[in-house]
Amino acid sequence: MAENKMTKAELQERITLVPFHKWLGLNVVEMNEDANNVSIPCREEFVVNPKAGYTHGGILAAIIDIAADYALAAKIGAPIPTVDLRVDCHRPAMPGELTVEARPIKLGRTFSTAEAFVYDSEGALLASGRGVYHSQSGS
Amino acid sequence: MAENKMTKAELQERITLVPFHKWLGLNVVEMNEDANNVSIPCREEFVVNPKAGYTHGGILAAIIDIAADYALAAKIGAPIPTVDLRVDCHRPAMPGELTVEARPIKLGRTFSTAEAFVYDSEGALLASGRGVYHSQSGS
Amino acid sequence: MAENKMTKAELQERITLVPFHKWLGLNVVEMNEDANNVSIPCREEFVVNPKAGYTHGGILAAIIDIAADYALAAKIGAPIPTVDLRVDCHRPAMPGELTVEARPIKLGRTFSTAEAFVYDSEGALLASGRGVYHSQSGS
Amino acid sequence: MAENKMTKAELQERITLVPFHKWLGLNVVEMNEDANNVSIPCREEFVVNPKAGYTHGGILAAIIDIAADYALAAKIGAPIPTVDLRVDCHRPAMPGELTVEARPIKLGRTFSTAEAFVYDSEGALLASGRGVYHSQSGS
Repeated sequence: MAENKMTKAELQERITLVPFHKWLGLNVVEMNEDANNVSIPCREEFVVNPKAGYTHGGILAAIIDIAADYALAAKIGAPIPTVDLRVDCHRPAMPGELTVEARPIKLGRTFSTAEAFVYDSEGALLASGRGVYHSQSGS
Repeated sequence: MAENKMTKAELQERITLVPFHKWLGLNVVEMNEDANNVSIPCREEFVVNPKAGYTHGGILAAIIDIAADYALAAKIGAPIPTVDLRVDCHRPAMPGELTVEARPIKLGRTFSTAEAFVYDSEGALLASGRGVYHSQSGS
Repeated sequence: MAENKMTKAELQERITLVPFHKWLGLNVVEMNEDANNVSIPCREEFVVNPKAGYTHGGILAAIIDIAADYALAAKIGAPIPTVDLRVDCHRPAMPGELTVEARPIKLGRTFSTAEAFVYDSEGALLASGRGVYHSQSGS
Repeated sequence: MAENKMTKAELQERITLVPFHKWLGLNVVEMNEDANNVSIPCREEFVVNPKAGYTHGGILAAIIDIAADYALAAKIGAPIPTVDLRVDCHRPAMPGELTVEARPIKLGRTFSTAEAFVYDSEGALLASGRGVYHSQSGS
């Protein structure tokens, strides 16, 4: 697979340009040639169930979309538009920091695919998914 | 298909119990036996592209997940957990109010399926998708 | 949405060019500007459960992929490559003829989306799904 | 993750009970605690494009569904019904033997998730995907 075209600092800078990402609080923890790790602190607006306090599946879907996109961005040099997204919810996301690990599955000329896995602070898999992104959409 | 078990006011009340829904500003516009319509005002935290100002795909994914779930909730009497979600992005979501229409595809004993379509204020289809939800998950 | 660029006879002819379609026995029943209906007779090689005799989910997935693609082909003039596919299985497909109804969701310059619904001979919904297809892939 | 409950020979025997699998010609090549490998010889009925001779995406979807299901079956002791399936097509599948590698993502009480990757004889990734299966569906 292609080599990274962004450093960890460049990836973080690019992610933080986006108002929605700033609201989510995305923080690039690690980046290597195979995968990226991004952490997300809990926000009270994430909550779906006020008693249990766990995070809404829609937030998990958004995080998977973003992480998969930036796994491709690392290889391409810039994020690209989402064509479609698939998300599987495996366990309720209890309050606490989330981590998402994402990696490219296929870099293509027109379409690229990446997958992402969301974990809680103890390493339990909460959700996972994959998206197709439009590679040729220009800068 | 089964008759609705919730009125429009009950659906709105139930939706507004959820902190993430309150942040999104979901407003039930219409509800009948076939489908529900929910409107969402634009928030500046939704934005993915500060220049163009359009809404992040992750927000559209969250809206599709919620609307599809509540299309089932109308028939079942309460929202149920998301098992998985599929979202297709059709057009960039320019600034402005969004509307999402959702309807059940199949009500099942263990799992149920619903689909949702997100439109802009001029009726253009921005995104659509479908989810599977866990019917038997209790209260 | 664009007008059809193929007649029912042209659609049938185009479908039957494909060896896999011939094996499946696809027969175009109806075609209008909104949707197509294709019927599929049962084959013993379709079976997943020799006792109950019902059709394998993989066959339902293939039928949904094909029907959704040809719903786009009717508008574009030729079938286009599948980018990705989502299939939901709603009920076991007991022995008997299947019918699949498909319609475009969005015709785009680079990628297009369509959905399809598979019914048994009594009109019960067995499976449904949607696919993204590559519009610009040439002839 | 749970230990395997079937040997390679038992998995092969179970797979071959199914008429559709026999037609596909599925052959268990390798099985360990993490993943299974199944090979599929080419059949002329698989073909979508008579000139290029490549395999239909519907066949790839069926193979991904089956391989993901049997990755769960290895852990559970028997195959379980497909709830839904997501398939991504990465490259045209030229004539030749296919191999599919599948592994569980999450074993759950009610729903389980697995993913599968289809390769050609030179190791190029042709398609991949994931499915949700109904764990509690009895024998």
